[in-house]
Amino acid sequence: MNESRLFLIEDVPGFTPQISRLVSMMNYARYTTLSEVEGLGVEQLDYLHDPQSNSIGALLLHIAAVEVAYQAATFYLRDLNDEEGGEWNAALGLGDRARREIRGHDLDYYLGRLEGVRARTLAEFGQRGDEWLAVQTPFWGGQRANNHFKWFHVCEDELSHRGQIRWLKKRAKGDAT
Amino acid sequence: MNESRLFLIEDVPGFTPQISRLVSMMNYARYTTLSEVEGLGVEQLDYLHDPQSNSIGALLLHIAAVEVAYQAATFYLRDLNDEEGGEWNAALGLGDRARREIRGHDLDYYLGRLEGVRARTLAEFGQRGDEWLAVQTPFWGGQRANNHFKWFHVCEDELSHRGQIRWLKKRAKGDAT
Repeated sequence: MNESRLFLIEDVPGFTPQISRLVSMMNYARYTTLSEVEGLGVEQLDYLHDPQSNSIGALLLHIAAVEVAYQAATFYLRDLNDEEGGEWNAALGLGDRARREIRGHDLDYYLGRLEGVRARTLAEFGQRGDEWLAVQTPFWGGQRANNHFKWFHVCEDELSHRGQIRWLKKRAKGDAT
Repeated sequence: MNESRLFLIEDVPGFTPQISRLVSMMNYARYTTLSEVEGLGVEQLDYLHDPQSNSIGALLLHIAAVEVAYQAATFYLRDLNDEEGGEWNAALGLGDRARREIRGHDLDYYLGRLEGVRARTLAEFGQRGDEWLAVQTPFWGGQRANNHFKWFHVCEDELSHRGQIRWLKKRAKGDAT
């Protein structure tokens, strides 16, 4: 991620024009997620605001898990396999299982998972072109969606959870209670 | 907004290719915001989770206010004028002033404000082309930003607050307490 170009949606070396613009957006979204969690300790990452809340750690892993699910769907045209499901389903589903299973990790654990997944996305994007981004399949409710939308959705899901992380962080740190 | 094309990031009649893709994203983001608040009453729109929380109503008006601020910045190359500031500054700034001043409105009030602002954005987009989207100015910290980034930021700010609205709504409705 080139931080001096963080506020430019434009061509990015190694990617076609539309994929470049998508990558620019995903880079900026990720930058804001990482800025939000910088310096958080295990206690803050595990903080549960109430019995129905997701922890910041679980939300970070969820962001990576959604990206893995869309890698499978759009690059390999399949669902998660059993091995991937075992690794990611708790984070994908959030809720009770995530509250039980996703805890006790430090920030580096989550950052490593996010980074590994993103590296694969960028490698696959680099092998594809704008015509791939326009490919449509039946999607939610049978309505057509193209790959451009599916990857925008990955980004918008991250941004939505980043908004929740921002809210939760203030409470986890005691800044707003 | 054409709901049958909601999951397609593609050309939209009346807009140039890049502006079309941005409009597709903004349409989808707005659709998810509106879906989230559908059917909420005044009590839920005014719900304050704790003394530092923003209400759902204030967040909705904030989404419109940010869009107004970026209309001024990118279409008219200026800050909000006094009249606009009087109308939007409470929503822009959120916090104490928004908690005091933005309350008691029904959902239609917020929907009307969002819709009026968006109509102006789309009208202005329709008069511009992709070369305008690429125009750069000094921005945060003096770093360059282009109009494409600035409007993506409007969209990502909405998505971040929609994530918070989703969290707050569950508590306002008592679904998660």
